[in-house]
Amino acid sequence: MQGRGKFITLEGGEGSGKTTMISRLGSYLEEQGIPLLVTREPGGIEIAEKIRSIILDPLHTSMDSRTEALLYAAARSQHLAEKVEPALKAGKMVICDRFVDSSLAYQGYARGLGMESVWAINKFAIGDLMPDVTLYLDIEPEEGLARINAHNGREVNRLDLESLEFHRKVREGYFLLKEQFPDRIQIIDASRKPDEVAASMILSLKAGILKDFDE
Amino acid sequence: MQGRGKFITLEGGEGSGKTTMISRLGSYLEEQGIPLLVTREPGGIEIAEKIRSIILDPLHTSMDSRTEALLYAAARSQHLAEKVEPALKAGKMVICDRFVDSSLAYQGYARGLGMESVWAINKFAIGDLMPDVTLYLDIEPEEGLARINAHNGREVNRLDLESLEFHRKVREGYFLLKEQFPDRIQIIDASRKPDEVAASMILSLKAGILKDFDE
Repeated sequence: MQGRGKFITLEGGEGSGKTTMISRLGSYLEEQGIPLLVTREPGGIEIAEKIRSIILDPLHTSMDSRTEALLYAAARSQHLAEKVEPALKAGKMVICDRFVDSSLAYQGYARGLGMESVWAINKFAIGDLMPDVTLYLDIEPEEGLARINAHNGREVNRLDLESLEFHRKVREGYFLLKEQFPDRIQIIDASRKPDEVAASMILSLKAGILKDFDE
Repeated sequence: MQGRGKFITLEGGEGSGKTTMISRLGSYLEEQGIPLLVTREPGGIEIAEKIRSIILDPLHTSMDSRTEALLYAAARSQHLAEKVEPALKAGKMVICDRFVDSSLAYQGYARGLGMESVWAINKFAIGDLMPDVTLYLDIEPEEGLARINAHNGREVNRLDLESLEFHRKVREGYFLLKEQFPDRIQIIDASRKPDEVAASMILSLKAGILKDFDE
């Protein structure tokens, strides 16, 4: 009989190649015969989807930043209860595209709500369900932006430069989180070629949670 | 020019006469010429109403109790930001029907989520906006229930007895809160006649936040 599954989260800024890397990681784990769930909030969970639609409604320009953070935490706890927790119990490995560290880095640190306060509500939302490992795809914001622009065929503009400042803060936030959770968070250099980044993620998992799966 | 207004919250179990007492208190304060806002969450605030409708949707039987508590906190912070805070800034006295102590007593204590955890998310939701005074209309659950039944012309049944147990826990929760916030929370004996209860509330306010209004 299977034991409880492992919980992996992926984090990364714009242009870090997160979507591609989740797909690469998923394929690798499936090839190993590991039962897998790949998900991201709100993940098709009805209550969580409804909460998310309140957050994203463009008419809600008056939404307080605390209300927003609480709603993200609420959608998170429902997604966990209905989707992640049952999969882990069934022995599946779960890969979640963004999780608590995104809230801490973006809202807590870069938007200035405070990492400790955002941590307090997230701790309430997730209970004991912390990820076993978190892979942070690290890239310099300038480089991530250049990649996106190259992909869209346009030049860097003024708005990009403003957003650069913000994404630098986000990256700083992730580095602070690495200090706080040195074992859980693995920094993966995402400036390299996709094959190298994928190999590096897999190596990192093999040294940790995939140890038992190795022959 | 008016200074910042005072923030009063009213709490009380079933059959404590809270609705009547809010109306009595409102009338008294208006007679004194005090600019006043009487409100209760979600209070007609669109975002807060939408959040509340997710909580109350009878189809959401799978709602996690943590999700629910986070949604209550989210609706609270939006109601504060859009309605309570502007009124206080405009120098109005604000009376709110139920506030943070309800979450602590009902969800934190009686439903077992833990007062400290529920306090953590509410602290995030309200920031520095704690009530200046909280009037808790105290009544023995048996007596409150008897009042409601007398009003509806029916006998006490088995479900009532089960709910009695719950309301005893709620009352215990409020007593624990009184220990934690001895100055802010005033216990008003609500087993007396309406006139006496109203007089007792007013007396309590006169000894505290209404001192400056007395000639």
